[in-house]
Amino acid sequence: MRKLYVFDTTLRDGEQSLGITLNVHEKIEVAKQLVKLGVDVIEAGFPASSPGDLESVRTLARELKGVIVCGLSRAVEHDIDSCAESLREAEYPRIHTGIAVSPVHMAQKLKLSPDQVLEASVAAVKHAKKYVGDVEFYAEDAFRSELTFLAKVLEKVIEAGATVVNIPDTVGYATPWEYAEMVTYVMNHVGNIGRAVLSIHCHNDLGMATANSLAGIMAGAGQVEGTINGIGERAGNTSLEEVIMAIYTQRSRYGIDTGVNTREISATSRLVSRITGVPVPAHKAIVGSNAFMHASGIHQDGVLKERTTYEIINPEVVGVPKNRIVLSARSGRHAFRHRLLELGYNMEQERLETLYQGFLQLADQKGEIFDQDLHAFVGGSVSEENNISIKQISVTTAGASSATATITLELDGDTMTDAACGNGPVDAVIRAIDRLVGEPVTLEDYTLQSVSRGKEALGEATVKVRCDDGGLVVGRGISTDVIEASARAYVNALVKVKKMADQIDRPAGDIITDEVTVFTRQ
Amino acid sequence: MRKLYVFDTTLRDGEQSLGITLNVHEKIEVAKQLVKLGVDVIEAGFPASSPGDLESVRTLARELKGVIVCGLSRAVEHDIDSCAESLREAEYPRIHTGIAVSPVHMAQKLKLSPDQVLEASVAAVKHAKKYVGDVEFYAEDAFRSELTFLAKVLEKVIEAGATVVNIPDTVGYATPWEYAEMVTYVMNHVGNIGRAVLSIHCHNDLGMATANSLAGIMAGAGQVEGTINGIGERAGNTSLEEVIMAIYTQRSRYGIDTGVNTREISATSRLVSRITGVPVPAHKAIVGSNAFMHASGIHQDGVLKERTTYEIINPEVVGVPKNRIVLSARSGRHAFRHRLLELGYNMEQERLETLYQGFLQLADQKGEIFDQDLHAFVGGSVSEENNISIKQISVTTAGASSATATITLELDGDTMTDAACGNGPVDAVIRAIDRLVGEPVTLEDYTLQSVSRGKEALGEATVKVRCDDGGLVVGRGISTDVIEASARAYVNALVKVKKMADQIDRPAGDIITDEVTVFTRQ
Repeated sequence: MRKLYVFDTTLRDGEQSLGITLNVHEKIEVAKQLVKLGVDVIEAGFPASSPGDLESVRTLARELKGVIVCGLSRAVEHDIDSCAESLREAEYPRIHTGIAVSPVHMAQKLKLSPDQVLEASVAAVKHAKKYVGDVEFYAEDAFRSELTFLAKVLEKVIEAGATVVNIPDTVGYATPWEYAEMVTYVMNHVGNIGRAVLSIHCHNDLGMATANSLAGIMAGAGQVEGTINGIGERAGNTSLEEVIMAIYTQRSRYGIDTGVNTREISATSRLVSRITGVPVPAHKAIVGSNAFMHASGIHQDGVLKERTTYEIINPEVVGVPKNRIVLSARSGRHAFRHRLLELGYNMEQERLETLYQGFLQLADQKGEIFDQDLHAFVGGSVSEENNISIKQISVTTAGASSATATITLELDGDTMTDAACGNGPVDAVIRAIDRLVGEPVTLEDYTLQSVSRGKEALGEATVKVRCDDGGLVVGRGISTDVIEASARAYVNALVKVKKMADQIDRPAGDIITDEVTVFTRQ
Repeated sequence: MRKLYVFDTTLRDGEQSLGITLNVHEKIEVAKQLVKLGVDVIEAGFPASSPGDLESVRTLARELKGVIVCGLSRAVEHDIDSCAESLREAEYPRIHTGIAVSPVHMAQKLKLSPDQVLEASVAAVKHAKKYVGDVEFYAEDAFRSELTFLAKVLEKVIEAGATVVNIPDTVGYATPWEYAEMVTYVMNHVGNIGRAVLSIHCHNDLGMATANSLAGIMAGAGQVEGTINGIGERAGNTSLEEVIMAIYTQRSRYGIDTGVNTREISATSRLVSRITGVPVPAHKAIVGSNAFMHASGIHQDGVLKERTTYEIINPEVVGVPKNRIVLSARSGRHAFRHRLLELGYNMEQERLETLYQGFLQLADQKGEIFDQDLHAFVGGSVSEENNISIKQISVTTAGASSATATITLELDGDTMTDAACGNGPVDAVIRAIDRLVGEPVTLEDYTLQSVSRGKEALGEATVKVRCDDGGLVVGRGISTDVIEASARAYVNALVKVKKMADQIDRPAGDIITDEVTVFTRQ
């Protein structure tokens, strides 16, 4: 069996594409789950992009064990220095540096000649090697580059010490056959390719990122890059869970193995969705809620007779429990804990006890508690300290589009009440909270979703608020009452905004250009 | 240029997978948009599955011009008869009949020998040919079949008169290389394949439906089957918009052309999403709201310098207007109409005037009106007759999870008011409506989404209600007030349920088995 390295960039290419700012607690939660999933490399951020990003890469590098922690940098001395600085405490640090190699990128974006790009590439790798042994080089827009030039660049950077070379389809233009051709060309024309791992990185603009990745792997690539749930720029990156399961279903045929624990896939997908506020589409392959549902009568009939008639993956293999258990207020601590374990939540006694008390309240309101309720409930219970809490909400509306809300909050230990009018009750509640908290944010996005069936469906609200400095923050709240769920989500976002203000400032939304400081111009 | 036929099964494989029941008005609206998009074949339903389905296929067959209208049927005499009956008035009718050919399906589901399956296949095609000239045969689970047997079946059904033969990857197990191998095998081993069009039909369980379809097309298939937005069983069918645009981006290289008007893709995607209640994921290739957004600073910088650095498709080609115009209450009829036209809405003067009045009201409430608002607004304005309308809503809550709603409705011309308590205001409103309308339905799913930014975001509520007979119906409502949007969505669903009750009953949710009445047993 050939080992395939799995390189996760959910926290870099994924996060950057959302325009949101995850705080360091959220990043650590995701990263620790990725370690549990068994990925080999975690790209933790782009340290030179902001002091905040540098700090969070530094924290991840310190906290994560047993995994390569990687930082992105352009082929620019300053970027590489920041990267090295942020990775200083990592057990296995990797610097990922590179530059665009396609004619359109070199001429139009970089305004550099191929020779200058070649020179910058080699200089960047050499500079990175001063800090770490493990240096990955990316040849941006490799798929649209001239292959002879690409091969020359790769050969030179491997000579300069690159341990991994990444040939991305940056714009998602490839078909599997063309991508395989490129990989084959590189395998055959880069004399020293045996001294490095060849890595592939695809985008899904034509819906073929998974197939392209598989094509690259079959043609000899040793590392695949992607994100959980396929989040990323434009139509997203390769969905790692799809590539992993495509290989899993025919692993003996391909002779390839990943070190991934497939049973963690479902939990990882849910966590990434919750923390980024990006829902998983119901029909998403492997991790969608419909992925293992059979709707048509003919299909249901077939599956009842023999599962494999319409099912190529046993849902349990990706961590979806087979049996359906419904909990209620009469379910004891033991049943509650047991089901959480089956759903992939393993937590200390103290947190469990707090959750159990909340569960009893919820069960009183809602009656039947399904798996989806538990996911929302556990996901929605903030384990970190919370300096704002909602004590009471009341709302009155009369006639269309006119509402009054009165809200009582506990803020840094003080209890305070205020009221506001608004265009509907959610708007009124948010205005009342604004009066009390006084954080200068704008509500950018708001969704509310029922998370399960039952007598009283549980609603999960997700809000995105834009801060003063341009950054976007995600907040979540759940309740059987949509107004309460919305208020909780908004307060959750405000708590995060306030915490971030205490951390180092992160100037979000600034445009980083590629052109100014490449090595050749210094 | 070789012509590729595009076979849309959004209304059959798509609808059936959702467990929802679209009414005939909704189906016609989708089908007419598909004709505008330029697909060649519309699979309108599965007439034998219920009298309601038969009736709606009949209506579509009568109404649609310039397109092949197709009905699905098992290899069962009764199914084919129903199909023929429903297609009687079609300009270009096609019967799509078939049976499973893989060992696991034949042995476990059908409990038939290969010889019996072969016999049933030929008998089905011959029977269908009595009614129509254009008969498509599907070899269910072809990808997992024995190729020699598959070739034998295809040869015999073409001999019996099949004009199209469909070799699906029913369970989404194929990789592009394997699917291409199967197509090549069929092209080389079915002696009379030149007398039929070879059709491909893929599922997305491993995220490779688009690449598999492209593989099949390159290997010689002449028809591709799929759905808009990729809706369908489990992880969905092939997304037609992805295949169409993958071919479009390199059409001269492939030497293949579809008759599709790509500029209708965006409008078609939105319509299917609105009517089915299945949201389009933000990162969906081609049609997602992020598909043409550039988030990272480096990418933004590149696109500003030269669009093609990070964009392989000009958004206008798929019908996304380039310029961003914000309307307001001061925008006249002309500006309103002009923007609607640019967004793909072409409507008669009368409907336009009604919409304009509504637009002015909305603009008063909301200030700035973005494209997303217009889409939601036009999509949410029901053009059919509505026998329930909301006159007034007022809600009072006090304390968590306790609310009272008072609602005034006009129902069949009478004005009536009632109140109810509930677990939060949405629940209270729904209970009050239930008291007034008295339709025995259960709320199954509820989502609320802000559709745009701006001073007052517009909320779009989608509900799914389950009827007495087990069917699911989707309702939508928009408003700047979430409670009002929710009430409108619920009332919209109830209106549809009431209308359906007046139509022929459709027993939903019954399991149709494959085993009872195949020809060989009759």
